Amino acid sequence: MTQPTKKIVLAYSGGLDTTYCAAYLKKVCGYEVHGVTINTGAFSDADITELHEKANQLGMASFKCLDVRYTYYDECIRFLIYGNILKNGTYPLSVSAERIVQAIKIAQYTKSLGINAIAHGSTGAGNDQVRFDMIFRQLIPSVEIVTPVRDQRLSRKEEILFLQSQGVAFNFEKAVYSINKGIWGTSVGGKETLTSDQYLPESAWPTPLSTHETREMTLEFEHGRLLSVDEQTFEHPVDAIEYMHSLAQPYGIGRDIHVGDTIIGIKGRVGFEAAAPLICIKAHHLLEKHVLTKWQLYWKDQLASWYGNWLHEGQMLDPVMRDLEAFMESTQAKVSGKVFVTLMPYRFVLNGIQSPHDLMSAQFGSYGEMNKAWSGEDVKGFIKIFGNQTSIYHQVNQTEFYEEN
Amino acid sequence: MTQPTKKIVLAYSGGLDTTYCAAYLKKVCGYEVHGVTINTGAFSDADITELHEKANQLGMASFKCLDVRYTYYDECIRFLIYGNILKNGTYPLSVSAERIVQAIKIAQYTKSLGINAIAHGSTGAGNDQVRFDMIFRQLIPSVEIVTPVRDQRLSRKEEILFLQSQGVAFNFEKAVYSINKGIWGTSVGGKETLTSDQYLPESAWPTPLSTHETREMTLEFEHGRLLSVDEQTFEHPVDAIEYMHSLAQPYGIGRDIHVGDTIIGIKGRVGFEAAAPLICIKAHHLLEKHVLTKWQLYWKDQLASWYGNWLHEGQMLDPVMRDLEAFMESTQAKVSGKVFVTLMPYRFVLNGIQSPHDLMSAQFGSYGEMNKAWSGEDVKGFIKIFGNQTSIYHQVNQTEFYEEN
Amino acid sequence: MTQPTKKIVLAYSGGLDTTYCAAYLKKVCGYEVHGVTINTGAFSDADITELHEKANQLGMASFKCLDVRYTYYDECIRFLIYGNILKNGTYPLSVSAERIVQAIKIAQYTKSLGINAIAHGSTGAGNDQVRFDMIFRQLIPSVEIVTPVRDQRLSRKEEILFLQSQGVAFNFEKAVYSINKGIWGTSVGGKETLTSDQYLPESAWPTPLSTHETREMTLEFEHGRLLSVDEQTFEHPVDAIEYMHSLAQPYGIGRDIHVGDTIIGIKGRVGFEAAAPLICIKAHHLLEKHVLTKWQLYWKDQLASWYGNWLHEGQMLDPVMRDLEAFMESTQAKVSGKVFVTLMPYRFVLNGIQSPHDLMSAQFGSYGEMNKAWSGEDVKGFIKIFGNQTSIYHQVNQTEFYEEN
Amino acid sequence: MTQPTKKIVLAYSGGLDTTYCAAYLKKVCGYEVHGVTINTGAFSDADITELHEKANQLGMASFKCLDVRYTYYDECIRFLIYGNILKNGTYPLSVSAERIVQAIKIAQYTKSLGINAIAHGSTGAGNDQVRFDMIFRQLIPSVEIVTPVRDQRLSRKEEILFLQSQGVAFNFEKAVYSINKGIWGTSVGGKETLTSDQYLPESAWPTPLSTHETREMTLEFEHGRLLSVDEQTFEHPVDAIEYMHSLAQPYGIGRDIHVGDTIIGIKGRVGFEAAAPLICIKAHHLLEKHVLTKWQLYWKDQLASWYGNWLHEGQMLDPVMRDLEAFMESTQAKVSGKVFVTLMPYRFVLNGIQSPHDLMSAQFGSYGEMNKAWSGEDVKGFIKIFGNQTSIYHQVNQTEFYEEN
Repeated sequence: MTQPTKKIVLAYSGGLDTTYCAAYLKKVCGYEVHGVTINTGAFSDADITELHEKANQLGMASFKCLDVRYTYYDECIRFLIYGNILKNGTYPLSVSAERIVQAIKIAQYTKSLGINAIAHGSTGAGNDQVRFDMIFRQLIPSVEIVTPVRDQRLSRKEEILFLQSQGVAFNFEKAVYSINKGIWGTSVGGKETLTSDQYLPESAWPTPLSTHETREMTLEFEHGRLLSVDEQTFEHPVDAIEYMHSLAQPYGIGRDIHVGDTIIGIKGRVGFEAAAPLICIKAHHLLEKHVLTKWQLYWKDQLASWYGNWLHEGQMLDPVMRDLEAFMESTQAKVSGKVFVTLMPYRFVLNGIQSPHDLMSAQFGSYGEMNKAWSGEDVKGFIKIFGNQTSIYHQVNQTEFYEEN
Repeated sequence: MTQPTKKIVLAYSGGLDTTYCAAYLKKVCGYEVHGVTINTGAFSDADITELHEKANQLGMASFKCLDVRYTYYDECIRFLIYGNILKNGTYPLSVSAERIVQAIKIAQYTKSLGINAIAHGSTGAGNDQVRFDMIFRQLIPSVEIVTPVRDQRLSRKEEILFLQSQGVAFNFEKAVYSINKGIWGTSVGGKETLTSDQYLPESAWPTPLSTHETREMTLEFEHGRLLSVDEQTFEHPVDAIEYMHSLAQPYGIGRDIHVGDTIIGIKGRVGFEAAAPLICIKAHHLLEKHVLTKWQLYWKDQLASWYGNWLHEGQMLDPVMRDLEAFMESTQAKVSGKVFVTLMPYRFVLNGIQSPHDLMSAQFGSYGEMNKAWSGEDVKGFIKIFGNQTSIYHQVNQTEFYEEN
Repeated sequence: MTQPTKKIVLAYSGGLDTTYCAAYLKKVCGYEVHGVTINTGAFSDADITELHEKANQLGMASFKCLDVRYTYYDECIRFLIYGNILKNGTYPLSVSAERIVQAIKIAQYTKSLGINAIAHGSTGAGNDQVRFDMIFRQLIPSVEIVTPVRDQRLSRKEEILFLQSQGVAFNFEKAVYSINKGIWGTSVGGKETLTSDQYLPESAWPTPLSTHETREMTLEFEHGRLLSVDEQTFEHPVDAIEYMHSLAQPYGIGRDIHVGDTIIGIKGRVGFEAAAPLICIKAHHLLEKHVLTKWQLYWKDQLASWYGNWLHEGQMLDPVMRDLEAFMESTQAKVSGKVFVTLMPYRFVLNGIQSPHDLMSAQFGSYGEMNKAWSGEDVKGFIKIFGNQTSIYHQVNQTEFYEEN
Repeated sequence: MTQPTKKIVLAYSGGLDTTYCAAYLKKVCGYEVHGVTINTGAFSDADITELHEKANQLGMASFKCLDVRYTYYDECIRFLIYGNILKNGTYPLSVSAERIVQAIKIAQYTKSLGINAIAHGSTGAGNDQVRFDMIFRQLIPSVEIVTPVRDQRLSRKEEILFLQSQGVAFNFEKAVYSINKGIWGTSVGGKETLTSDQYLPESAWPTPLSTHETREMTLEFEHGRLLSVDEQTFEHPVDAIEYMHSLAQPYGIGRDIHVGDTIIGIKGRVGFEAAAPLICIKAHHLLEKHVLTKWQLYWKDQLASWYGNWLHEGQMLDPVMRDLEAFMESTQAKVSGKVFVTLMPYRFVLNGIQSPHDLMSAQFGSYGEMNKAWSGEDVKGFIKIFGNQTSIYHQVNQTEFYEEN
């Protein structure tokens, strides 16, 4: 009597590491491998066809490519926009956000198949292993996690030799820069990003500068949701984002280098190009400056910054994230209106906004001009009271501020 | 027996409003007027000579122009740099910071003269009146504050007519844009900034674009203090900032429009050009990303954002500001090193940094590569514990995350 | 042709100040006075009958006492419980919260009557005037606000003399302590609270100590809502709170003195007794310590503290308050379970909790005991990574911590 | 030729686990054991003599008991007082703080001996191992950490059997409650604290209630430093704290149960008695409410709460802690004055304070009474401006608040 074949789900990307895993898990460990690719914007139809072919050649028992772009927006990207989240003031969390949604979707897929082993190709040196493992342990704690690349610490060359020995002869050229593409931005790592003092050369960027003509663009938001671009309405914000991307990325907009803290405590540096995310966040933020109150702006900043960090560290399933999302969603009630943008090579300018909720309504007083709602006497009274405590403080303590300095 | 003449200190800028005040206070109210101009970077030697002449013509009993640029840095600007403070993510608080230092210096000057009345030319519609009045009431509470322009609500035309009637025939052309210049940036208000939807035209910017050639620039910081530019060391950071400004402003760098909340509750919009502040803050921030720990970066952001807001609202003398400055100063202990910048028309790129305190030292592990300090097993253990509470949460509550979404 | 009589709504409490207003507005100003009392727990049925009689005698055109206790809970108190809000760690905001709900209800009532003048009896020295005026100006900006007591700065004696001259002979004995009663606590001000160094004597507290026997009490919460006390279920949390109050206040529980910042910048001191609020908040907080994650607890504290301060300052209608309420509501999803309390003279002890959402489940490891979910090796790995950045920091900077200290 | 004997420093407490370590390291591993006990208030002179005897019997090559109580205050406790830190609103971090200082002192001692191995007796289930290991790895990264108890997962019984086999016959009775004593509080764990629903019985508390008479106590602070108790001045705050403890603990004051998050993610519950810390913190906090401005109080709360959590998690060496300490130290400039306290069985009352820096000076207006510094008109002006933005918000958005609710 034979033992039933062990089944395993493999998070497959088509790259060298996960291809090695596919072959190793099947050939060496004897698993029945069920591959899955979570498409968060990296893969075209042609890419997906190729993934299926590779899966087939690797002898996977099944393979599925799940398009989760809309869910990715609904469960994650929209909060990054609501919060105007740029980690360390720079990075739209392109890869961080993507990995988390991928991990959740893989966990759900694994559960739906009733399989209780799951493999991924992360190494032991980066953020991704933390995001994958942690989310698996939180959503499907009884499932075994298998990570051949991390455990065996193989070199690129060793992986290729093993694959060749198994008759897998895919072409795995080592690129100078490793690229990770997705709807919320594309990362670029390698060479210059490994040290602290060099910028990436023009040739490193995935999308070369190809447009030079100044172009106007109008974005329309409804309750913080991107509704239309240039009066063209889209079924889903993801479609609007992809459209924006096709227009703006050829300007070389949204390129930068992020320097940040990895989950494992070391500093890392990575380039990225993210035209649509950058324009979208900056435009949304400008609209908010007009329609939100001072303290809404303040608290959004503080909370969103923490939310972005905690997301980055893979902690998306901490229930505090749902609480912060409830806060952010509430703030979007009046974030509706148009934002006018000009695109130019390597940069864009936010010209202004138009919104029925604009608090800068001339009706209630223009900055620098007097109006009917209050008088100079009112302001004098305001100032007395507004500065009262500090005034008392200095009198009680007889502070000699003018001498101290 | 005659009554002694009443004396008053007048914050004089040479503009229409304070010229009106000078004439009105002397001629109508019978004050002995002691003018003072606090130079925070607006006035050249020629300007100062002109101010003296005007003061003379206006019959001031005395006039002084105090150069406080170095103190301005020491008491204020350095904390704006330490905190990388850009209000609403955009504005270096050019005018806000300046007014506060001016108010403090005027209060000290008034006290040193032993005079107990003080006049300023603010209207009743803006932020400046709050900053002036409040700081005067806090530092010199027994001194009377006189504000003819606010109290009389005169039009420009009425002021000019009064001045002509008093034989003062200065030339006060109304410019399309009102400009306020200082070492921490120049503001530009008028026309487009009075509505929400238009950007300023090229002609509105005080410094026209005049340089097109790409230029490398190296900034060196020591404990957060700008020490040198392009290896050229300066006596004081203010000199370095002014040098940077002369190089970078002709590129049109640091132009933008700030939308923000005035102290009196309405929204305001103002253009600014601030090449040196923007480059300085962004370069300093990049250096910090390399040398500070994750939580230093986090808390600096949160606290500096609030510090900037409270400064903007004129509350610089609240003792909490001293406490936050102590925090910020402490964070700068290791913020030493070089930052490499490239200047181009309308923009600049931060290429990287070099610092003995760089935590991205390859010695302790490079991102994405394994090293000796920890193993894959260590990280697995880390992940188990790091995600432990949320894992327990989902098990206790039997959350069906994969179905909920 | 006669002019139509001017109508005004008067916020009437039955006290001296508002009685003066009633007489003054009718007799001197010629208003048709429409009195309204907002009952937030201060008035019994007998009190209400008395209010009606007084209104009648004062010749009010109409009078209404609105019972808003349930709405008060629904719109305000529940967030004070969700947030465990004790201002400065002490005060449940008894009066602050009440005034705001009263102001909102008066504004709504005024609007419903179509009257465009509104009067209240606040003086110019306290918090209440700010709360009333500000909320009226925000909700019914076109309505005129009339404040005779503030404007005339009358003494108690002058008010009584005027009332006697108008034939109003109510008895207004001056109590040593002024008391303000409501469901969320009763304040006690006077004598000792006017200085900084004395506590209130036993006789000052409205509810004397009358119970000495130790008593057990069980509270049950459902999603943060107080459901039952001692297994007795109530229709509405307000009924449960009033029941708790009747049991616990005779123990002298929840007495203290609050020292805080008034809205107008001076420090104030006020005694209060608030047995039910204190027990309710502390019990709810204990339950949360068991069912919420670390960061939920952290953010609730930070945000609730600010929410309480902003509420205290009358800013309840700032939309940021709705956003913070959305956050707090979200955190209550699992805050269900029982809390066991022991009441004793002047104090109570929280014995413990019982909840299906208790994260301190022995199933997932007990503190101090090893378990199956992770090993000592896992924790070692965790520690290496958890302390990694600071470790790198000290190596890069060759910090000699042991010598520095 | 013989190999040199391996040396190791052992953190020795006299308890079963570290006694086991001493014997095991010497006898089984062949180490030359250098014992060290860090006294943070647990050990009397008699205890110390006993420790020396035990060390001798265990054949340690050397043994030292370091009295670090003053340093403990200087480097840690004072910030807990400045910050009024009670974790989760309850716990003075008695054990957490102690362990960190112990770890730092052991690291320094180890370094001073030039030994590069260090052993401690923590198990793999608690917080202490994290604090010890992490601090050792940060301060003396090249030193090997040896943890026999964690690695071998021995039961109490197995440890005792081993010791007996080695001729060590100390008496190790298992107490019902495990007690950890120190100057900043004594923890009590066991039985009831292992579940969620029970309080500790009277007999569990280390210090029985033995004083019933009401007692007045006056504390004097200078810049936040406890200077004297009942007019009796002490050389060092630690002496004052120990004196307070001897007076107050017999009242049963400062007993409670802390429920909190361990560093490893599970919830834990522990009893504690901490009369002096509780009185000291509450008295200090009251003084601050009188002498600090509103925003000083606000930011101290927010930052101290985070500081306490990060300390609890062993992260004392993160440089952000130094930055927060600089902030806290700055806030103490005016925290000088007397606090009047009454002690009673199981509780204490704060009667009030006296300070030259008291901002509740009648000179500047008493709460509820008008004064010369501002008028009712001033406050009306203040209110208009203070509520201006929210007023505009509701008009722009035509919010129907009165209907919504």
